[in-house]
Amino acid sequence: MGRIAVTDGMDDSAVKQLEDAGHEVVLKHYSKEELEAGILSDFDAVVIRSATKITDKVIRSSSGRKRSLKLIGRAGVGVDNINMDAATKSKIAVCNTPSSSTNAVVELTIGHLLSCTRHITTGDRTLRNGKWEKKNLRGSELSGKRLGLIGFGRIAQGVGKVARSIGMTLHAYDPYLPAEIAADQHCTLHDNIDDVFRLCTHISIHCNHSAETHHLVNSERISMMPGIGIDGVECGNHLVNCARGGIVDEVAVLNALESGALSSVALDVFEVEPVVDNPLLNHRNFHGTPHIGAATYEAQARIGQEMAALIIDFLKGRKPKSILNPEVI
Amino acid sequence: MGRIAVTDGMDDSAVKQLEDAGHEVVLKHYSKEELEAGILSDFDAVVIRSATKITDKVIRSSSGRKRSLKLIGRAGVGVDNINMDAATKSKIAVCNTPSSSTNAVVELTIGHLLSCTRHITTGDRTLRNGKWEKKNLRGSELSGKRLGLIGFGRIAQGVGKVARSIGMTLHAYDPYLPAEIAADQHCTLHDNIDDVFRLCTHISIHCNHSAETHHLVNSERISMMPGIGIDGVECGNHLVNCARGGIVDEVAVLNALESGALSSVALDVFEVEPVVDNPLLNHRNFHGTPHIGAATYEAQARIGQEMAALIIDFLKGRKPKSILNPEVI
Repeated sequence: MGRIAVTDGMDDSAVKQLEDAGHEVVLKHYSKEELEAGILSDFDAVVIRSATKITDKVIRSSSGRKRSLKLIGRAGVGVDNINMDAATKSKIAVCNTPSSSTNAVVELTIGHLLSCTRHITTGDRTLRNGKWEKKNLRGSELSGKRLGLIGFGRIAQGVGKVARSIGMTLHAYDPYLPAEIAADQHCTLHDNIDDVFRLCTHISIHCNHSAETHHLVNSERISMMPGIGIDGVECGNHLVNCARGGIVDEVAVLNALESGALSSVALDVFEVEPVVDNPLLNHRNFHGTPHIGAATYEAQARIGQEMAALIIDFLKGRKPKSILNPEVI
Repeated sequence: MGRIAVTDGMDDSAVKQLEDAGHEVVLKHYSKEELEAGILSDFDAVVIRSATKITDKVIRSSSGRKRSLKLIGRAGVGVDNINMDAATKSKIAVCNTPSSSTNAVVELTIGHLLSCTRHITTGDRTLRNGKWEKKNLRGSELSGKRLGLIGFGRIAQGVGKVARSIGMTLHAYDPYLPAEIAADQHCTLHDNIDDVFRLCTHISIHCNHSAETHHLVNSERISMMPGIGIDGVECGNHLVNCARGGIVDEVAVLNALESGALSSVALDVFEVEPVVDNPLLNHRNFHGTPHIGAATYEAQARIGQEMAALIIDFLKGRKPKSILNPEVI
């Protein structure tokens, strides 16, 4: 049976699922040196989250004599920590669990939007510091405003559904989305991303990080945002990123908070993680969480179960639905 | 024409509305001594928020020779700061603006629910303190859980609508509500409040504060909460109060946070406001805001406009819709 390395942890029930199917599971975080020295060549599959980096060098050392790595399973969504070209060249399949964490990110995004517009973290922080800042904490309502969604996949659609129930109208930019999906979700799809920034006082990011989307949120686009809702309320401009660091230019965001071009920003993801000495953290209208978009008990259980089922099927010779480089099979 | 005192501020557009109708508006906060000395006897109406206390003594001194106070307008909802019996005895009408702030409180309640279950304030606070606490901040999802609403009026119904869109199921206790309204909103109405606590991992308070509801949330009821969602997830128990201080026993809540009977609590209202030296504020899983439920630009504009229209009509001899002591007219 198969040998599976789990380097960044996995839900207990999922580990049991693999073992019950007869596979050997090794739960251990390997150092960069161990990975580069070829430790994965003694496994059929490796399950990682974001902490383990699968570089070209790691992949080139992952073919052994007895066994060879055949599958990299990303327990989660983003594969920025995997060298996809190298994996494909070495005929190693890469799979993720794209839908398991959807609802967790949807709820965090809505939480951040409301926390920003209603000063929840600021209210809590000032209360703890002995101040009753009621008069300084007048906020604005999401209802009656436009929400701009950059990327309109599963997560953005989930955010949109809740935002609509609050009373927002939806605008999106997603060059890869069939127009009828947006229409089904009562969302206006735009061909030009700048139009979304021009129309919307509230923007939430839901795309991948790639060369195409790097620093997609920059000073110029922030300066296009209207600051006044379609209901005539001067609610300011608000930005949320629970997708990937690097899509938002953090220097531009700090400048925009300082100039007032942005009234608030909420980031769950950062250009450098863990965050160290980022001047953004000191701004009153910054709201941050440490990359916890998928960090719910529910999502971790779903991710583990989906990954375990996928590996079991793969090792029986079936092609996984969520394979990201289907050309290797 | 009428003379109107506005003692706790009012939206500019509403003041203009009153002046355009020919009334004189005096925007001034009066001290307790001035109020008790009869300053209001020279006005036809007074508009207050929560800061001005209209006591028996203030009311007894509000009948003058030239004019007499005829209307107390509460720009907002709660009238705990008005002695209703004394007002009724003196034939002074008391009106509020009950629906203007509904959506503002709905959004804050949902924000607090998500902030609690996803550790948003804790994430922000620890980030600002230079810590990357990703591993300690695993949360739980609202989707798939039961939300218990204590009181099922306009605000609770609004919260329920958004909570349902997130995937929660609704349970409520409201002895004054016709059962068909709950059914229309897909909410199970219970005759016994304890049943709501027994069934629900998440409870939100949406009733008035009265002798009947004082310390309605106590240790016994908190201990009934299940801690495990109907989806089987050990999400803990979560309590939100954006209604009125005093409904929740704060000592019981602190004990419950310490024992783990509650995993989180979010309070926008407190037994004593402003909050001073409340030991709750030091608990990691407490989330607080300084009574900002109605503190949005939208709500304040709606409140002002509704109050101005009401006063203009009242001074023309029409009975206001939102009169709380109709027996005086």
